Parts: sequence; structure tokens; C-alpha cells
Amino acid sequence: MAVELKDLTNREESYSQWYNDLVVKAGLAEYSAVRGCMVIKPYGYAIWEKMQRALDDMFKATGHENAYFPLFIPKSFFSREASHVEGFAKECAVVTHYRLKNDPEGKGVVVDPDAKLEEELIVRPTSETIIWNTYKGWIQSYRDLPILCNQWANVVRWEMRTRLFLRTAEFLWQEGHTAHATREEAVEETNKMLRVYADFVENWMAVPVIMGHKTASERFAGAEDTLCIEALMQDGKALQAGTSHFLGQNFAKAFDVKFASKEGLLEYVWATSWGVSTRLIGALIMAHSDNNGLVLPPRLAPVQVAMVPIYKGEEELAVMATRLEEIAGELRARGISVKVDTRDNVRSGFKFAEYELKGVPVRLALGPRDLAGGTIEIARRDTLTKETVPQEGLTDRIEQLLKEMQKAIFDRALAFRQATTFKVDTWDEFKRVLDDKSGKGGFILAHWDGTAETEEAIKTETKATIRCIPFDAPAEEGKCVYSEKPSHRRVLFAKAY
Amino acid sequence: MAVELKDLTNREESYSQWYNDLVVKAGLAEYSAVRGCMVIKPYGYAIWEKMQRALDDMFKATGHENAYFPLFIPKSFFSREASHVEGFAKECAVVTHYRLKNDPEGKGVVVDPDAKLEEELIVRPTSETIIWNTYKGWIQSYRDLPILCNQWANVVRWEMRTRLFLRTAEFLWQEGHTAHATREEAVEETNKMLRVYADFVENWMAVPVIMGHKTASERFAGAEDTLCIEALMQDGKALQAGTSHFLGQNFAKAFDVKFASKEGLLEYVWATSWGVSTRLIGALIMAHSDNNGLVLPPRLAPVQVAMVPIYKGEEELAVMATRLEEIAGELRARGISVKVDTRDNVRSGFKFAEYELKGVPVRLALGPRDLAGGTIEIARRDTLTKETVPQEGLTDRIEQLLKEMQKAIFDRALAFRQATTFKVDTWDEFKRVLDDKSGKGGFILAHWDGTAETEEAIKTETKATIRCIPFDAPAEEGKCVYSEKPSHRRVLFAKAY
Repeated sequence: MAVELKDLTNREESYSQWYNDLVVKAGLAEYSAVRGCMVIKPYGYAIWEKMQRALDDMFKATGHENAYFPLFIPKSFFSREASHVEGFAKECAVVTHYRLKNDPEGKGVVVDPDAKLEEELIVRPTSETIIWNTYKGWIQSYRDLPILCNQWANVVRWEMRTRLFLRTAEFLWQEGHTAHATREEAVEETNKMLRVYADFVENWMAVPVIMGHKTASERFAGAEDTLCIEALMQDGKALQAGTSHFLGQNFAKAFDVKFASKEGLLEYVWATSWGVSTRLIGALIMAHSDNNGLVLPPRLAPVQVAMVPIYKGEEELAVMATRLEEIAGELRARGISVKVDTRDNVRSGFKFAEYELKGVPVRLALGPRDLAGGTIEIARRDTLTKETVPQEGLTDRIEQLLKEMQKAIFDRALAFRQATTFKVDTWDEFKRVLDDKSGKGGFILAHWDGTAETEEAIKTETKATIRCIPFDAPAEEGKCVYSEKPSHRRVLFAKAY
Repeated sequence: MAVELKDLTNREESYSQWYNDLVVKAGLAEYSAVRGCMVIKPYGYAIWEKMQRALDDMFKATGHENAYFPLFIPKSFFSREASHVEGFAKECAVVTHYRLKNDPEGKGVVVDPDAKLEEELIVRPTSETIIWNTYKGWIQSYRDLPILCNQWANVVRWEMRTRLFLRTAEFLWQEGHTAHATREEAVEETNKMLRVYADFVENWMAVPVIMGHKTASERFAGAEDTLCIEALMQDGKALQAGTSHFLGQNFAKAFDVKFASKEGLLEYVWATSWGVSTRLIGALIMAHSDNNGLVLPPRLAPVQVAMVPIYKGEEELAVMATRLEEIAGELRARGISVKVDTRDNVRSGFKFAEYELKGVPVRLALGPRDLAGGTIEIARRDTLTKETVPQEGLTDRIEQLLKEMQKAIFDRALAFRQATTFKVDTWDEFKRVLDDKSGKGGFILAHWDGTAETEEAIKTETKATIRCIPFDAPAEEGKCVYSEKPSHRRVLFAKAY
């Protein structure tokens, strides 16, 4: 398909248009005929598969197993947990009938009124209720605990304002749901999985994150504590990249799940849940990409090295292709994914632009002069620099370069975050930082009086929310930036996706 | 969880009860609170993951990419392809509303009548329509072809009579959807993917299959030709294990998908689709298992080798466990999945029965006498035989044994099929074979006059259907077993799941 690079909007002009253009033109995703639902195209899905594989390995290494629970949840299940119904059972897809019939007037098919369900089914927005209803049958004694299950699935939340990957009616995710005999063990699991997410986002996605607790008003509906990782995008907005919830005994009580303890007592089970979604692809794009296109960290790039022959005529093409295939073979033997691009109907310049748009980390170009001199040209996507190097030792060099780039992309994102994180002590300064027209508002570390009223007032006046109470926020006496009441530590504010 | 092996129904007593018991007691799946929907439990899902990985590798090796299309399909899409709507848009889950609200009478939540969708959405029963509507935007010229996409997804068909894995309202599957410039290429793809399925089912699942064409009345709704692989279960019933459809230009015409050919003509695109589902897990169980439980072919067994220490007292347990862990390490280094079972709260006999129930191919037991003599006991799940062998060379022996077992399980299933496939030339014989109370009805190769009327009459009288017109059916003149009209080749009949 034709790539029209020139039509990519500049980030500086309109960040949101740049993002949308990039997602569509790089072939990651597009909107579908169904309102708010996206099609994840092969290149976007290939990134998701890499994410899935890495996360799944990490889940299994921490003792978790995958399972699969129904797409549909009986409506009444949502009412069982009081705060959960408020948070989730409102904007959702409701199945009311199970049959269509031919339109008596001959216009296609219509819903058969005789096939009305006794109880409506909700397309899962999250699966705590159906899973805890299932766990009731799996748990009798402490010997059945812990249960450490994860599910890879699609979920639906009826969003009115959608944006590709960031907020769509249907999205793909994983949801872990664990059951424990003690509060301590469940709290430990909640923490452990947040750290797994932080490890993945930092070391695979090359996006630095801040770990912390959500405030009470930002908690998951039904949780006693919600932990999160927060990342900063290049426009200075925050993005919640993953959450891990300590659910206490709320769902066990709602679904009557008890176990006989070692001491022979009947107790309610303790729960956690945790999830990340295809939203991470949005974060990946917004954290690193530039006006030439995507910048993918090597560990998640579907193609890590693209090779382009420089030639005149078929004969020269064949010679270059042969040598490039030899090099490709050596790279593949090291587990590096390579594409040798021998298309003859587009120019090399077009290929270069296409691989830049698609964020391929390393591009090699080989022409007759290189062949004669035993050299090859290497271009780096992150810095857009290129150099001519000897073919001798190329495999080692590329392996090393991919590692360096993974680190460099992370370091650049970290430096950006450090440069756009501000300690703020007055309300005027708070507003000034957020209004900075350079678009580098970023993170604000400020004192907060701990009340939901102040949190709400700040949000209403500035659109900034408390992203989290960071784990590593040191105890520090101060005055709330809004109310001037006493505060004991700074919290993290930002405008957010 | 406690395994109550003694409650497993005998196959000879009730095959369907045996199957259901086995699925539930081996921890593969169970029914959920939602009518007709199942929960796939971790052990069942682990088998599905192994199947997915193998199939996905095969799809990629044949040039396919994964993508993801919406769960919901606008109702009107189904009416675009005339026969498709008849086949699929009837028994399905219909989303009519997108919001719930608090019940004004205070009883939980109710559907908000103000949130009625303008057009109802169908939860996908299969995705041809939404995908071809999408492909319209992807295809302009022959250069955009072929498109070779696959999707791993959940689908919903509102089934009234359900059976775990074999027929449930929601199930998991993959659906390939390809677009081609020529009829020949699409036909070739249809064939190629059927052969990929046959390769997988025979060489991974160890289930022999017969490849062939479906008759017109058994074709996929919207296909010009449906190819299938048919397997025989131990009760003599057939199971359709996978299908690959040549869709002609039907969906391209329904969704107006044309391309500019090399010659500059505007032509409709040619299509295929092909799928296999979690139904394969049902086939795997029914093809090989016995009254002691599952028999899993080594290539799909989540645990290939289970190790049980034989001991008295903690000290001896520690000694055995240490030696077993050493052996486990050597096996894992060869890519063999191993579980060392050091549980101290159940007896070895219980462990043996549990691994038999779960179909673990090889079980090792190590006791003090073995340790002293440098031996170990190996038990094979497929033959239920055991022998004591030297520990020396054990890793090689087990690696070899797993390969032998994979072949032996296939060979046994093939021998069973050969013994229960009958060439039949008279209607009396046809009925007698099907009525055989030994339950070994099996496959019947018989002449058929090629008419839908005869096919229907045979089905009505005997419940047997034409499973396929086998690829390898030789030309042979004969008389239809029912109508006695002329026929040119035998077709494959059986009662089927």
C-alpha cells in the first residue's frame, strides 16, 4: 500500500492529529464500520503479539496460569458489589435477544421479539464478577489457594469519545485475578504484579514509569487500593500504563466465596486483579515517535533490521540481494528479525521513508561501492544518523547496536521526563506550569491536603488530576498547593489521557 | 483440588457421560453461570495454548499475519450476502442497548430505554462480513494482493444443545481471511490451508483425518466450495476438525471490493476463509482417552513427564526430590516439560491416578531401591505399561520414548479407523453397520447419486450424513446405496458430532 509520508502532520502543529495520522499511516490500526471499535492491522497486531509474549512469559515466571471465562455476564452480577456496579455497569453493550428472523416486509433481518432473554447479558467490561462466581466452585479449603489466573481477552466499554488504542469501545487486554488465604499475601501479589508491569514498560517499551497509589476517588470500582504506573508522553500529558488492585474481601463477600483455614475457621477469600491493554501501544507511540514516524524500541519491533539494496538494473539487484540474504541469515541465527526488501517497483528513497515511518530500528543499505569496498551503510532510527562501516564484524555490531538503542530510547524518555517534572509550591505556579504553551506541562509534584474536595476543585479548574501518590515520595511537611492546609508528602499531578 | 477418579463413568456404559466427566474431572473446562458458555480451566487452556502456538507458527510459515477485527457486526451486513444471512444471522447474540441505569424501584440496574442503538449489533458468529467491509479500504490494485490475514478470537453462536468444547454458545477459534487476484490463487490457498490443518491434526494431535469436499448442502453459508478434514472418534462418530472455504467472489460482490488488475481492468477480488476452534480439544479427548482418563500425545501435553518420589519420612523425600530435580533439569534442557511432585499431603498412589487422569505421557517413580541400584521406574500413559530402567541414558531414552508415543498414539487411532471403516454396497448393510450396538459404526464408504434429496433422505432415516467426498476417492462406477441410481465414486458417510 502506498505510504504518503508527506501527509504526516507535524507534532508541533497538532499533537493529536500527528498521533492519529501516525497510527493510520504506519498501518497500526484504523476505525471500523462499528462506532468506536477499531481494526488492529497486521503491523499493529505484531507489536501487540510481542508485548503479549513478553508479558505472558513474565506472568508464568511468577507462577500464573492462563484460563478463559465467558464474554457475557448476567446483569444481576454487577449489582452484587455496590461500588462495582457504579463504575462498570453503566456504559456497556447489552445483549437482550438471541435470534433474528427474516423481516416480514422483506427488508433483510429483524430482531425476533420472541427471542428475548429472561435476563440481559452484559458484554464484559471487566471480569471480576463472573470470575468470582466461578471461583466459588473452585475454593473450599486453604489447600485450594492461592489461585493465580490470568485471562487474555477482549472487553467492551461504551466510550463516547474514542481515540485509536487509547480509548475504544472494544479493546484487547489481559486481566489477572488471584485468590488468597490472607490479606498479606494478596497485598504482596498486588505489589508484585505492579512491579512486573513496571519492569515490562521500562525494559521492553523503554518508557520510564512512576509507581504509586491512586487516590480514593481514582480507585478501581470495588478495590480497597489501586496501584498504578504512570508514564509521561511527549506532549506533557500523563498516561496510566497499568493498574494492580487489592480488592480486599469485597468480591468474596459479594459472591460468598469462603474457605476453611488451616485452623478450621470459615473465612472470606482475599482478592487482587491487575491489567494492561492495547492502550500500551498508544503509550509506546506517543512516548518515542517523531515527525518522520514511529520510533520502536528494538525489543518490541516486529522487524528489527530492514535491508535495502542500492542498484541499477536487475543484475546488480540480484548481486546485492544475494549478499544481503547472507547477512540476514547470520542475523536471524542470533534471533534478530530481518526483512530484505528487494521490491523493484519502488525507489530506495521510498523504502527509506517507509522504514522510518514504521519505526524499524536499524536500516542497512548496500550498493556496488560498498560491495567493492567490503562496507555497508547502517542507519539508526532513533537518532536518524547513519555511518558506513566494514561488513566484517557486522553481526556483532548490530546485536550491540540494538542493545544500545533500547537503552538510548529509554534514557531519552527519562531525560525528557526529568526535564518536564516540576516541584511546585504555589497555586499560580501550578497553573503556569500546566498552561505552558510549549506543551511541556509535564508532571507536577505538589502538596495536597488529602481531601477529595480539593482534588475535585483542582481538576475542575485545571483539568489536572492526581496521577498517583508515588511509592518513593519522601515524607515532607508542606502546605496544600490549593487549600494551603497541611500536607505530609507531595503527590503527582498532570493532565492525562 | 481433590480428584475423585472412582467417579469417572466407563466409556462402555455411557460414552457421552464419560466424556463430560473426563472434561470436568481432569480440570479442562466446566459450564459457567451463563447458559451455554464454558469456563476453560487452566489445564484445558494450556492445551489450547500449545495448539495455538503450533498452528500460529504454521500460519506464519505459510506467509500469514495476524490482525484483529471488531467483535460486533452491524445487523445489515449479514443481509448483504444472501446465503450467508440464512446460515449465520439467525441464532446469535444481539446487542440492542448501550447503557444500564439504576432501577427507579431500587432493584439493581435496568436497561436504559433511552440508550437504544439505531442499528442492532450482532456478536460475531464468524467475521467474513466485517472483514470484507474492511478489505474494501485496503484493496485498490493488484499490488495490494494477496492479503493473508488470520485472527485469533472468540465467536458466539446461540446453540440450544451444548456440550463442553464440542458445541458451546461462545468458543475460541482462529479464522483466516484471504484476498486474491485470481480464482486459481484462491483455490490454491483453500487447499494449502486444509493441508496445514491436516498436518497439525495428524502430527500434533495424533488424529488421522480424511480430507475432502463437503457436499453442496453441507457447505459454509456463502462458499462456493468447502473443504474439510474429518476425524473418527472412539464411539464411531465422525468429527469435523477443520474447514477451509473457497468463497469465490461472493463477499467481494456483497461489499463491492474490486481491484485494478495488471491489465488495468477493474475486477472483483477472490476470497478464502478457514478456521479451527477449541472444538479440537474435544476431538483430542475423544480420539485417544480411556477409562483411566486423558491420553495426551506428547507434543500437546502441558506436562510431558511427571516425577513422583517414593519415600518414607521427610529425610527420604528430600533425597529423592534432589535426585529427581537433577533429572528434571536434564530433561528441561532438552525442551521437555517436567513436573516434580513433592507434595507430602497425598499418597503416591493418588498422584499416579491423578497423572493418569490428566493424561501426562510419561511418569517416573524413584524409590530408595532405585536410588541404590541406579534405576528408575518409567510408566507410559498410552499403554499403561511400566518398566524399571537404568538411570544411565535416561534423558535420551525419554526423548526417544516421547517420539515413539506420539507415533504409537497416531498408529492406534489409525488402526481403529481402518478397522471401523466399511465399504458398503446395499442399503440393508448401510443400516446394519450404523446400528451396530458395539458402538463401532464408524465410517462408511458408499455410492451416492449426487442429489440433495437422497442425502437428506439418508440423514432422516439413519442420522448419517455425508462427511465429505474424499480427495483420494478413486473413480469407480457403482449404484447409489439408497436410490440405486448411477454413481461415479464413493463418498464418506457417518453419524457425526
